[in-house]
Amino acid sequence: MKIVQYAERGNPVDVVKVLEVDAPSAGPGEVVLDVLASPINPSDVLTVTGDYGILPPLPAYCGNEGVGRVASLGEGVEDIAVGQQVFLPVGAGTWRQQITAKAAEIVPVPPGTDPLQMAMLTINPPTAYLMLRDFVRLEPGDWVIQNASNSGVGRYVIQLAAAQGAKSINIVRRAELADELKAMGADAVVVEGPGMSKEVREITGGAPVKLGLDAIGGDSTLALGDCLTDDGVVVNYGLLSGEPCKLSSAATIFHDVTLRGFWLARWFRNAPIGERMAVVTEIAGRIATGELVAAVDSTYDLDHISDALARSMAGSRDGKVLVTPNGPIDSQV
Amino acid sequence: MKIVQYAERGNPVDVVKVLEVDAPSAGPGEVVLDVLASPINPSDVLTVTGDYGILPPLPAYCGNEGVGRVASLGEGVEDIAVGQQVFLPVGAGTWRQQITAKAAEIVPVPPGTDPLQMAMLTINPPTAYLMLRDFVRLEPGDWVIQNASNSGVGRYVIQLAAAQGAKSINIVRRAELADELKAMGADAVVVEGPGMSKEVREITGGAPVKLGLDAIGGDSTLALGDCLTDDGVVVNYGLLSGEPCKLSSAATIFHDVTLRGFWLARWFRNAPIGERMAVVTEIAGRIATGELVAAVDSTYDLDHISDALARSMAGSRDGKVLVTPNGPIDSQV
Repeated sequence: MKIVQYAERGNPVDVVKVLEVDAPSAGPGEVVLDVLASPINPSDVLTVTGDYGILPPLPAYCGNEGVGRVASLGEGVEDIAVGQQVFLPVGAGTWRQQITAKAAEIVPVPPGTDPLQMAMLTINPPTAYLMLRDFVRLEPGDWVIQNASNSGVGRYVIQLAAAQGAKSINIVRRAELADELKAMGADAVVVEGPGMSKEVREITGGAPVKLGLDAIGGDSTLALGDCLTDDGVVVNYGLLSGEPCKLSSAATIFHDVTLRGFWLARWFRNAPIGERMAVVTEIAGRIATGELVAAVDSTYDLDHISDALARSMAGSRDGKVLVTPNGPIDSQV
Repeated sequence: MKIVQYAERGNPVDVVKVLEVDAPSAGPGEVVLDVLASPINPSDVLTVTGDYGILPPLPAYCGNEGVGRVASLGEGVEDIAVGQQVFLPVGAGTWRQQITAKAAEIVPVPPGTDPLQMAMLTINPPTAYLMLRDFVRLEPGDWVIQNASNSGVGRYVIQLAAAQGAKSINIVRRAELADELKAMGADAVVVEGPGMSKEVREITGGAPVKLGLDAIGGDSTLALGDCLTDDGVVVNYGLLSGEPCKLSSAATIFHDVTLRGFWLARWFRNAPIGERMAVVTEIAGRIATGELVAAVDSTYDLDHISDALARSMAGSRDGKVLVTPNGPIDSQV
């Protein structure tokens, strides 16, 4: 079978290779999955370039989530059927044709749903979901503000906030995104720049803004923090600027604004398996109903992994790039 | 009586004036105090220049803490004797010869103690005490790290940490301060610069460092944050660099380091009077025993307030500058 590997850090387009290796077999309590689809997330790219927080030893495999179809069952596995669609184990190196998984940790994909949407489920949507849930208690009508609002996580934040009755202010760099984000549930869209905190106060009428989600760092964190009201929390979850997060002393000292970090990998490491499965199942239900949806830019097979990576790193793309290691799949099942 | 006032913001040496006004009298439940000593704190200077977080309307009085002697009692005041030394009300404009206070909120100065040491009690020591108490639970042997270690607050942190059995790492800009800080209880002194986080790990042997106290902002916060271990908290309480606080995404995302602010004025505003009096009394006891001590650079009467301010703003001073509005006082009573 084919698997994507890299032996040195650098530009993913150059260092990532496709190898031919033996297909895996299912040990006791395991299943073998055919990988149907797996996205290229920003963290995948940063891991290959060496810019991510924790780096695997080399050589390493790529890909961290996706959807597969059960191909075979190991000894003692019950309640799972060959042919069933399930979520891939998170962080397992998913850009390959087959992968093993522990049967006890399998979460099934809701029947009749789009495998491409489901393939993007276990990283970006839980990040949005947990950041909205675990830092500040948002009541209906409360405000949340975020930057990088057009990102994968940003779009899930808009939809999840709207679904729970919270109001979102969405910072963008390009004003022309406003209509599209509003159509998916954004209450307000503002362009990052001087005077932004004043604009935010006008939008909210001075109501509390206690949660800010930051994927960028640097001056973007600073501007976000200055939009929060007393006791607000900025949650930094991304590195897009490559700059350290900043908060003004006006925010920290005089408005008691806190800066915290969120890292889904830590959450997966620390949360009990039952809690992890519950969150994935909860989000899968919302994707199945269409409450949550992400744009798909394009899909590639493994032989075109460099093209896929180049596309995923292009600023002009219009949604997520995914790999489909066993060939094109019908996204409208 | 004389009182210090300013009618415009700017260089304190230029804008602060001494006025002659009527002496106050004690209303029901009040006392009149002769002000014995009141320090010039960094926040006093920043308020006059207009760089502090909350600015009073102009014209405004100066000074926020100190020690006085009861001069007269209002109607209904009992249990307080004329001549008794007491703490001035915090934030009341204390660079004056007399001031009124509510009898019910008076905390007496322990008899036989140094009025200059006691005059510096209600701002810097509670800041150090509360930052060590309220953010991270420090057990004996646990590490705390701070910058601006030679400041007023910094020196109290060293002494308070040592008194509770915690170990302190003290970041300074000048290596020649090491012996002096170690003599007052510092476990380690490091010079800020590249490689500092490695040096800190060598000092601690890799033990957790969960609390960092930051009075500077900017790159100093960044360097401090990178010295903390998983789940650490950076508490920013000062503005010395004038730059926004920074934290690396390695700290926020991958080590779950939090940045929070501490502002004593908010604590005084929110804490019940009983809790405020208890903290002041607790610290007064520690100063009375000599467990806590601060250096005094010099004292000035109100007629030399501009000289006092110039001295307080000089980098070369060796301790705190205080005003003694009713003339020199004997600090070795």
